[in-house]
Amino acid sequence: MIDLRSDTVTKPTKEMRQAAFEAKVGDDVYGEDPTLLELEGTAAEKLGKEAAMFVPSGTQGNQIAVLTHCQPGQEIILEAESHIFYYEGASISAFAGVQPRTIAGNHGVMDPELVKSAIREDDIHMPETGLICLENTHNRAGGAIVPLDNMKEIYQIARANHVPIHLDGARLFNAAVATGIDVKAYAAQTDTVQFCLSKGLGAPVGSIIAGSNEFIKQARKWRKRLGGGLRQAGIIAAPGLVALNTMIDRLAEDHENARYLADGLQEVGGLSIGNNVDTNIVLVNTEGAGLTSHEFLDKLKQHKILGNSFGPNTIRLTTHFDVTCSEIRTVIEKAGLLTK
Amino acid sequence: MIDLRSDTVTKPTKEMRQAAFEAKVGDDVYGEDPTLLELEGTAAEKLGKEAAMFVPSGTQGNQIAVLTHCQPGQEIILEAESHIFYYEGASISAFAGVQPRTIAGNHGVMDPELVKSAIREDDIHMPETGLICLENTHNRAGGAIVPLDNMKEIYQIARANHVPIHLDGARLFNAAVATGIDVKAYAAQTDTVQFCLSKGLGAPVGSIIAGSNEFIKQARKWRKRLGGGLRQAGIIAAPGLVALNTMIDRLAEDHENARYLADGLQEVGGLSIGNNVDTNIVLVNTEGAGLTSHEFLDKLKQHKILGNSFGPNTIRLTTHFDVTCSEIRTVIEKAGLLTK
Amino acid sequence: MIDLRSDTVTKPTKEMRQAAFEAKVGDDVYGEDPTLLELEGTAAEKLGKEAAMFVPSGTQGNQIAVLTHCQPGQEIILEAESHIFYYEGASISAFAGVQPRTIAGNHGVMDPELVKSAIREDDIHMPETGLICLENTHNRAGGAIVPLDNMKEIYQIARANHVPIHLDGARLFNAAVATGIDVKAYAAQTDTVQFCLSKGLGAPVGSIIAGSNEFIKQARKWRKRLGGGLRQAGIIAAPGLVALNTMIDRLAEDHENARYLADGLQEVGGLSIGNNVDTNIVLVNTEGAGLTSHEFLDKLKQHKILGNSFGPNTIRLTTHFDVTCSEIRTVIEKAGLLTK
Amino acid sequence: MIDLRSDTVTKPTKEMRQAAFEAKVGDDVYGEDPTLLELEGTAAEKLGKEAAMFVPSGTQGNQIAVLTHCQPGQEIILEAESHIFYYEGASISAFAGVQPRTIAGNHGVMDPELVKSAIREDDIHMPETGLICLENTHNRAGGAIVPLDNMKEIYQIARANHVPIHLDGARLFNAAVATGIDVKAYAAQTDTVQFCLSKGLGAPVGSIIAGSNEFIKQARKWRKRLGGGLRQAGIIAAPGLVALNTMIDRLAEDHENARYLADGLQEVGGLSIGNNVDTNIVLVNTEGAGLTSHEFLDKLKQHKILGNSFGPNTIRLTTHFDVTCSEIRTVIEKAGLLTK
Repeated sequence: MIDLRSDTVTKPTKEMRQAAFEAKVGDDVYGEDPTLLELEGTAAEKLGKEAAMFVPSGTQGNQIAVLTHCQPGQEIILEAESHIFYYEGASISAFAGVQPRTIAGNHGVMDPELVKSAIREDDIHMPETGLICLENTHNRAGGAIVPLDNMKEIYQIARANHVPIHLDGARLFNAAVATGIDVKAYAAQTDTVQFCLSKGLGAPVGSIIAGSNEFIKQARKWRKRLGGGLRQAGIIAAPGLVALNTMIDRLAEDHENARYLADGLQEVGGLSIGNNVDTNIVLVNTEGAGLTSHEFLDKLKQHKILGNSFGPNTIRLTTHFDVTCSEIRTVIEKAGLLTK
Repeated sequence: MIDLRSDTVTKPTKEMRQAAFEAKVGDDVYGEDPTLLELEGTAAEKLGKEAAMFVPSGTQGNQIAVLTHCQPGQEIILEAESHIFYYEGASISAFAGVQPRTIAGNHGVMDPELVKSAIREDDIHMPETGLICLENTHNRAGGAIVPLDNMKEIYQIARANHVPIHLDGARLFNAAVATGIDVKAYAAQTDTVQFCLSKGLGAPVGSIIAGSNEFIKQARKWRKRLGGGLRQAGIIAAPGLVALNTMIDRLAEDHENARYLADGLQEVGGLSIGNNVDTNIVLVNTEGAGLTSHEFLDKLKQHKILGNSFGPNTIRLTTHFDVTCSEIRTVIEKAGLLTK
Repeated sequence: MIDLRSDTVTKPTKEMRQAAFEAKVGDDVYGEDPTLLELEGTAAEKLGKEAAMFVPSGTQGNQIAVLTHCQPGQEIILEAESHIFYYEGASISAFAGVQPRTIAGNHGVMDPELVKSAIREDDIHMPETGLICLENTHNRAGGAIVPLDNMKEIYQIARANHVPIHLDGARLFNAAVATGIDVKAYAAQTDTVQFCLSKGLGAPVGSIIAGSNEFIKQARKWRKRLGGGLRQAGIIAAPGLVALNTMIDRLAEDHENARYLADGLQEVGGLSIGNNVDTNIVLVNTEGAGLTSHEFLDKLKQHKILGNSFGPNTIRLTTHFDVTCSEIRTVIEKAGLLTK
Repeated sequence: MIDLRSDTVTKPTKEMRQAAFEAKVGDDVYGEDPTLLELEGTAAEKLGKEAAMFVPSGTQGNQIAVLTHCQPGQEIILEAESHIFYYEGASISAFAGVQPRTIAGNHGVMDPELVKSAIREDDIHMPETGLICLENTHNRAGGAIVPLDNMKEIYQIARANHVPIHLDGARLFNAAVATGIDVKAYAAQTDTVQFCLSKGLGAPVGSIIAGSNEFIKQARKWRKRLGGGLRQAGIIAAPGLVALNTMIDRLAEDHENARYLADGLQEVGGLSIGNNVDTNIVLVNTEGAGLTSHEFLDKLKQHKILGNSFGPNTIRLTTHFDVTCSEIRTVIEKAGLLTK
């Protein structure tokens, strides 16, 4: 199978498994797992934040951010197809009791003026605006990069209105590698950041949430409530460290493969590319081929190729460490056969 | 003062006060207030629903609907500037734990196709769609009437997808009077309806929520939890009954006054009318007069005229029982002076 | 019917109805109802608190206190059969997201040492203690008075631990009249107080919540979210004012009647009195008569007497303004016949 | 250090590490991790339940049970010092919106009659009883075993009242090993069970929740919302499988060590044993030695022995795989020196 469903399907490398095998461990609920502490320190440093905390998933990292920043009855501003709004089961409302105020973005990018006008005034009928969330790269916009300048503008608005900003940076390193801008620069435009070790970086499990010391202190309690307090977490922190220390730069290959894939599929009659392919995601429109996304995916599957449905006529193909350039070529060839 | 801020400012009539004075009362938590029971029966009959329940406010009626229809972690579809989303302090998320999925309407009217495509599929990442809410007339769209056919289309979609519909009909009688369509016909396109006794109908306090017997049974418990279980409620139910029995038809006057007001202000240099003035609300754009809404409202106030801000350059003027045609004329005159 | 189910069944007096008829009103969501403002001012003054707010029910007053004082994930300490825990539909958990920590009281009185040891230490596994709630008089303990000294001790503990105190004083005036201690003295031992206008004081609808200016400011928003923001509330505030100004002292009669009732029933074979009868509530144990509470209540009902079940063998009889001394005599006589 | 703070401090064995190294993995959000599937299948079979699901922690397993079984505004019955109530940060109220109704147990065992009388009747003032939780072995009662007959009685009551039962069996295998009763027999007395791989069984991370197919289906969505949906979870499932397949029987050693420790400390002047030492936990009362728990723990620490405070004068010592019999002897000796 050539599995382009997601970069979450990457399997841990031999080196990661070796690291897990050898990891020094302790009970992280007591704060005593040395490997985890090293991972958290490394992550904080890379992001330029005071502190960082390991969480079992990106969803939990985002939920902890909302729970820690907000109070029930508040509103959070976020992009209309952002992961937190679209793919986290309404947890922000179920657990944190906050209401999302969505803004339709352009390739995942929110117009700062719209963000500004969405901030609520002081009125007894209205929720207070408690948080602004950004997503970079933006998944549903096809791995689109939110420009640093856009983030800066929004952060200025946020600060002027005393509203904190959280960045869902599940794939932030993809943005950094593609633009050549240090992740620190992105992280500097937000109060808190979440990024995933388990997507393009290839670790088997886990994400990081980072922010101020005070934020992380409170976040630890919400993590415990959500059931994210682990014991000998070093077993999974060790592969995470390998990911963080060795797997970032190679994301550039995934981006090249995605570009190559997009260019190839572009030539296939009936298919068109629905995104800018800034990083490792390609959105393919199947309408011209007279196929729904599910029909097209079924046909691909018969050729041992897997992708994800992203709408009635859109599929998402994601490149990652476990897909080679030659496999990409196969995908293009097979797609050509399918649409005939 | 000529108070055009809202139709909520209407004061109870002599007849309403007399009814309160004479009301037969009992303890409604025990279900023994005869006046309240009569009000609930009358309301249910007018709406063509099995049962109805008195609530202290329209907000509580809406919240009870959401709490009764939904479960935490679900999503509700509603118009992007609907009252439930815009003006109820994020209570749907704070109390019911549901996430709003907003659709930008056209004059308060949601495109049924957009509603349909917003209903979530079965996916572990996604909330289930638990409820669709409509608002008729639509407050922020300037008292706009949502056409019965639109409601029918959405109801068919809702039923096909096993999603209930709640109608925030705070001003539903305005729609019925303006179109000549029975409220029953509107109510038939939804599972539950809330309407206010305290707005155009002039009662001092209270709203009604109506639906099936089973729904109202469960709703009573949520009302108790929200602190809406009253004791000798007949004192306020009696004016409510007067409102329901005698005040509906005269809403036509408010609509005429609003039309008259809009036509007059239209002629005033610098002002423009921002809505269709379907019922008793006029939205006035002050941009052409070089004034923000707050500046314009301040000037009006100096001439003993009150309105509401509805945006940076928009004010809302609402006609009601306590405003005469001659006062409307005064408003037009003063507005003419102000913008010179 | 002689209705001893609750003092909530009291019907408004002629004077209260007249007050409603004549009340000056305005829109209280805009803070413009003069009668309501007068009621809130009078209530704050009587309690010695900076500010007070009208709410439609005691339950809503208590819920607002919890929502305003606490944050989700906290714990509140309260008596094991307190109204907030026992009779408010788990709203403190459903809406405010807090966990009750109950302490079994002695006649409704919590041992200060137990309160102290229930306050949580700083530990990542534990909720923070967010609030202590008292109830005076204590309903399920049979209208028992919580001594002022006990309240003082608990308040000292609370302050030393930076935990606020809320008093559910639904029947606080009963305690004050029975002991001769000013309600101000009780209120001084708590941060916030709720009392009911609609129980012994005889008003048809409503309660008051009082505290600091800052607290009430925040509480107003939670009231709005709960749907307790009313319009021309003067219609019900006016009877409330009559209640507050004229009905307090006469509670002594209810207490005498309760005492008289208890003494009479004590003599009836098979019945025994289960509480101290500090105020207007009598708990009667029916076990000696070989009857369950429901059987005994059914028999009473055949003699046109109503009471409440308070357990398998316990009934509650409550005296109030609408029950005369001669009716109490009838109750004693009939009870004598029933148990033969 | 001799670490008796908890059996959570156990470090993974060489065999577990090897299993992690070699584990076949996949993306468990897609349900494709073969090792995880094997672990879940093995766990379900051992418990005699239809289905099982891996969760990152026991707390998350318990929270998922409450979220899946209950609705907001319900009440759950559980022991007054149960882990779910005492040590999970009020999450049941913060996330599931349910109110705990606590019953003081005898060595962790709730009297079935008290459970029965705590089930709420149908009353508009009251929450519905949504769940009963048991804990076996009971942590704060010192690893006490709840007898199977007690569980049977409570399950009969629960079924008769249509209330489900969840068992917090974090240390259920300790009970099974100590009594010789199959875990299946315990699990048969409940609807759902949670047990930990990471305590006495020695796995580095994770717990299992088991129940009906339908329950587990719904539970998976709540796990996703809580952020417990992992990717290549086989890395931690593999050690979990080793734990489940090889580490159960050896719990008997921990029990022997605990018994030996208790007998030894019993002889030490000033110390007394506060529990029955049914399994691997010893509660030691330090009052007779004139020491608070924290003072005694500090002294132990100077001798490189670690324990947990369990109250002002109580410490908890827990035996586990990483503590040898000879180390236990050292603890007894040192304790003897300390209290002189």
